[in-house]
Amino acid sequence: MVQKHIGIRDVAEAAGVSVTTVSHVLNNTPHSRTSSETRARVKDAAARLGYGPNRMAQGLRTQRSGMIGLLSEEIATTPHAGRIILGAQETARAHDLTLVIINSERDANDENHRADVDALLNRQVDGILYATMYHRELSLPANLLGTPAVLIDASDKAGLVPSVVPDEEGGAIAAVQALTDAGHRRIGFLNNIDDVPATRGRLDGYRAVLAATGITYDPQLVTNSPSETAAGYAVARTILDQANRPTALFCYNDRMAMGAYRAAAELGLSIPHDLSIVGFDNQELIAANIYPALTTVALPHYEMGAWAVETLVGLMAGHEEGRLLADQPTLIACPLVVRDSIAPPFSTNQHEPKD
Amino acid sequence: MVQKHIGIRDVAEAAGVSVTTVSHVLNNTPHSRTSSETRARVKDAAARLGYGPNRMAQGLRTQRSGMIGLLSEEIATTPHAGRIILGAQETARAHDLTLVIINSERDANDENHRADVDALLNRQVDGILYATMYHRELSLPANLLGTPAVLIDASDKAGLVPSVVPDEEGGAIAAVQALTDAGHRRIGFLNNIDDVPATRGRLDGYRAVLAATGITYDPQLVTNSPSETAAGYAVARTILDQANRPTALFCYNDRMAMGAYRAAAELGLSIPHDLSIVGFDNQELIAANIYPALTTVALPHYEMGAWAVETLVGLMAGHEEGRLLADQPTLIACPLVVRDSIAPPFSTNQHEPKD
Repeated sequence: MVQKHIGIRDVAEAAGVSVTTVSHVLNNTPHSRTSSETRARVKDAAARLGYGPNRMAQGLRTQRSGMIGLLSEEIATTPHAGRIILGAQETARAHDLTLVIINSERDANDENHRADVDALLNRQVDGILYATMYHRELSLPANLLGTPAVLIDASDKAGLVPSVVPDEEGGAIAAVQALTDAGHRRIGFLNNIDDVPATRGRLDGYRAVLAATGITYDPQLVTNSPSETAAGYAVARTILDQANRPTALFCYNDRMAMGAYRAAAELGLSIPHDLSIVGFDNQELIAANIYPALTTVALPHYEMGAWAVETLVGLMAGHEEGRLLADQPTLIACPLVVRDSIAPPFSTNQHEPKD
Repeated sequence: MVQKHIGIRDVAEAAGVSVTTVSHVLNNTPHSRTSSETRARVKDAAARLGYGPNRMAQGLRTQRSGMIGLLSEEIATTPHAGRIILGAQETARAHDLTLVIINSERDANDENHRADVDALLNRQVDGILYATMYHRELSLPANLLGTPAVLIDASDKAGLVPSVVPDEEGGAIAAVQALTDAGHRRIGFLNNIDDVPATRGRLDGYRAVLAATGITYDPQLVTNSPSETAAGYAVARTILDQANRPTALFCYNDRMAMGAYRAAAELGLSIPHDLSIVGFDNQELIAANIYPALTTVALPHYEMGAWAVETLVGLMAGHEEGRLLADQPTLIACPLVVRDSIAPPFSTNQHEPKD
């Protein structure tokens, strides 16, 4: 007698609902909007077909563990990791998968990365997400290539693995556009000094808005320094302490913007009336808590985590689209988060000359 | 023929090393300082005894999955979660256990918490860590009680489950002591308004230092407000804008301290020379980045995560000590993190009268 393998799709069909609904009901996913009538129908169908939630037995039956691994750099030291984990975990749950997390050190050497991947493979994960804590290009550990894998916030130098990264240029366009829309034409850019995609992409976005608005690019208004608060303060002091100072600053990140706030306060410049500032990252602890609250650009960490799991599920099912995605990173939009740090230039200093 | 069950202890014995070393070697734990000679000996012993890293097969043999679940509130919105996860994950790894994480909403209702616990139990976890994102007392979901469980940053109202919490009073003592040691005697306390253990414990610590130093408690110097930046600003304005203002402020958290910085700046008070400030939480994005950098008290999130896994491992092994710990929460110290926001009172205003 041939025993038909009963899967979640059979339950969904029998109950006349989607696979996601079956997953929500059988996993008791909180906050899913499923009526009690539907829940009862799904549970009846599952019981009738003998489909149970015992993942370990199920893993043996299907040669799958129902687990996907997330190798995440620096869980502990950045608030970004949490949003990636949340996006990945909620999406994994909707697919009836469990997310297993291993923390890796930033800039760990190749051997350590291989060891982290091995640790996940030893747990029989069905696929691996590999998340870096800032957007960069990397060479993958060789042992990652035999398993379905997706990169988050990083791109694969060899182009073998699908990856998802923030649209740095688009985010910078949104930020600088917000300044030109408010009437600014002399806009400083406190850029990072590291040669990473964000440094290049955000400069491209800054230049694109200037070009589109008919503003000549002035290299005097663009600085490169470490992307920290202290360096942001120092370069903002220099760039603001001149006769023909910019009326607005675009800062590479919220920490540099925080340094620029301090420079403005010391120079007696009131934000946003004497100086408009826009940041990048939407680090809420900073952006929502400094005064005035910082208008900035959000990095799409939740969305990248969710996209990566959806793509990984496709790879695990053997879909072709996933592999095709490996050619180049998929970009996810970085939206502007409007708070209180942008106003028209000289909005309270009417006696000052416009340039 | 009786097949003896081969465990990690057998491998350790055969190789003449500790269980932890075997775990590190067989899991390829990065950064473990094991010589290549030891690694070879462990691998030989494991191969000879037939001890392999296949967790799924091992789970069936021992009726254990080798997984422990971490139910964590608000992974996404607090930098605290990361340190708990890191402490738990590194300790789990040393015990050859995999940490599975489920995110839960803060203040989710009882039914949702039950569902989250069920989701972990369905994955056959051997034990559950239950972490809340701020220190409080809670009633546990009933389905948690049949499984080894440890609470992190929360205590169990019923006293059935071991728990680990920050030593709030000790942390406050360290903070206020730093101010009295610098010579302050008029010390304001911007306390939280919520009736939670931190509010009560930090007030106890504040009063304990005053009593020990012979300073009369002055209720005029203690405020209760929401523990946010804006409220911190408002109460600091009020408390500092009086003739006999305090020379130092102890703030319930770093966000309130950030508000107090703004109030001080508006009143022309320079930190630390005109006003010393000490915070609580050590939210590094704030504490290390505001100017001057904030002296504050660290919450022991990593240590609580590590303690919880050690205790859970004991419970899973049936040790009695774990159960005995349930009577009352285990306290972990909150150390002072010294930065630049404390100086002796009136350290630059020598002409001002001392009180």
